[in-house]
Amino acid sequence: MSDAPAYPVTSVNRVRRLHERGSYDHATVHAILDAAALCHIAYVVDGQPYCTPTLFWREGERLYWHGSSASRMLSGQSGGEPVCLTVSHLDSLVLARSGFNHSVDYRSAMAFGRARIVDDEHEKARALAAMIDRFYPGRWATLRPATQQEIKATRVIGMTIEQASAKVRAKGIGDDEADVALPIWAERIPIRTVVGAPEPCPRLAAGVERPETLAGYREGRRLDDALTQAHATTFPG
Amino acid sequence: MSDAPAYPVTSVNRVRRLHERGSYDHATVHAILDAAALCHIAYVVDGQPYCTPTLFWREGERLYWHGSSASRMLSGQSGGEPVCLTVSHLDSLVLARSGFNHSVDYRSAMAFGRARIVDDEHEKARALAAMIDRFYPGRWATLRPATQQEIKATRVIGMTIEQASAKVRAKGIGDDEADVALPIWAERIPIRTVVGAPEPCPRLAAGVERPETLAGYREGRRLDDALTQAHATTFPG
Repeated sequence: MSDAPAYPVTSVNRVRRLHERGSYDHATVHAILDAAALCHIAYVVDGQPYCTPTLFWREGERLYWHGSSASRMLSGQSGGEPVCLTVSHLDSLVLARSGFNHSVDYRSAMAFGRARIVDDEHEKARALAAMIDRFYPGRWATLRPATQQEIKATRVIGMTIEQASAKVRAKGIGDDEADVALPIWAERIPIRTVVGAPEPCPRLAAGVERPETLAGYREGRRLDDALTQAHATTFPG
Repeated sequence: MSDAPAYPVTSVNRVRRLHERGSYDHATVHAILDAAALCHIAYVVDGQPYCTPTLFWREGERLYWHGSSASRMLSGQSGGEPVCLTVSHLDSLVLARSGFNHSVDYRSAMAFGRARIVDDEHEKARALAAMIDRFYPGRWATLRPATQQEIKATRVIGMTIEQASAKVRAKGIGDDEADVALPIWAERIPIRTVVGAPEPCPRLAAGVERPETLAGYREGRRLDDALTQAHATTFPG
């Protein structure tokens, strides 16, 4: 594992608390990122930190997100400002026999870098297509093409990951040994985020069928699995 | 509605993009917060923004979270530093007939304030109990009592909400009228976060039964509903 590609560890991304839960290798960090649609981005405008939820996607060691050209978030992320993009998955609630040992199982990744507007026309066009195809492989080519006005109204931000860390807890109940015999209930409550039954638009044109490429989004499936599969289809290897 | 209690609107929390999705009234903001276990907090250490996922809870217009006394996050949140605490719920993926109209349905709330260590012994003890009871009503009193060492090892942060905003999209597919006739598939994919089958600790003491107060956490139930109910039970009104 020590030869696996990993992000450099600095004082910014070093996992200090419960460092046995931390890792920096690309595979672990990327798997957590690629299993998510939504991230939260921390950035600073006039000394005030903001935490904004947004859709994002990964291509190699670059992360992208987008928004309106009028967005406050994006106007604070155009010229290389430092940001922190975080993804987390809540996997369970853990009820122990003491308050101190109550916990949750989770997978989270934090990625640090400098946010810059993607103003190269070619990279921007490619990114807008990738944003759709990352979720729904091959879909961009089937859509009504983007207009110049739409492209102009959309700002794409890119960030090369400079440091990153992953933190995972997956141990369930971790009571003090002395507490186990106490007459107190303890349990792990699994939590999962799942796909519901897809609702076709009631105004679909006659004869239009659901594309095979959406088959991964089926009722009851874990969203993280569906997103991981879609990402691997669009960005293999 | 204009008489309902609301957070003051300033340049910090005003919803600028798609402002028809924004609101500031306590009821809307609090409902989004109370339906969540996990938030993301943006804060700044030495000019670097961080975005850290953590458990939190609300009491009136105050938010609390906690962590280790050794935590980097908390050491950057002790003396009144500005933070932004954000909660988001992803409700659906929206596949439209153009890339531009692809979207997601969501509920999010951002709360701004100054984070301070809770060092009053009484408030800290109450907060540690509330942190458990907010998720599992009445549970704190049934647990092995906290030791002085555990209390010392835990730092509680409190923040009075100074500004806040909620942003909700719940409209599903919103195609341009001219695009509806195109032979392109469009659908809404509902997303929900649910409770799995609770897994009792295999080492439970003989005769210990699952407390009735945990009945809200049952397989298949929406987590946001279970959390909302637990919060209302512990903090009625």
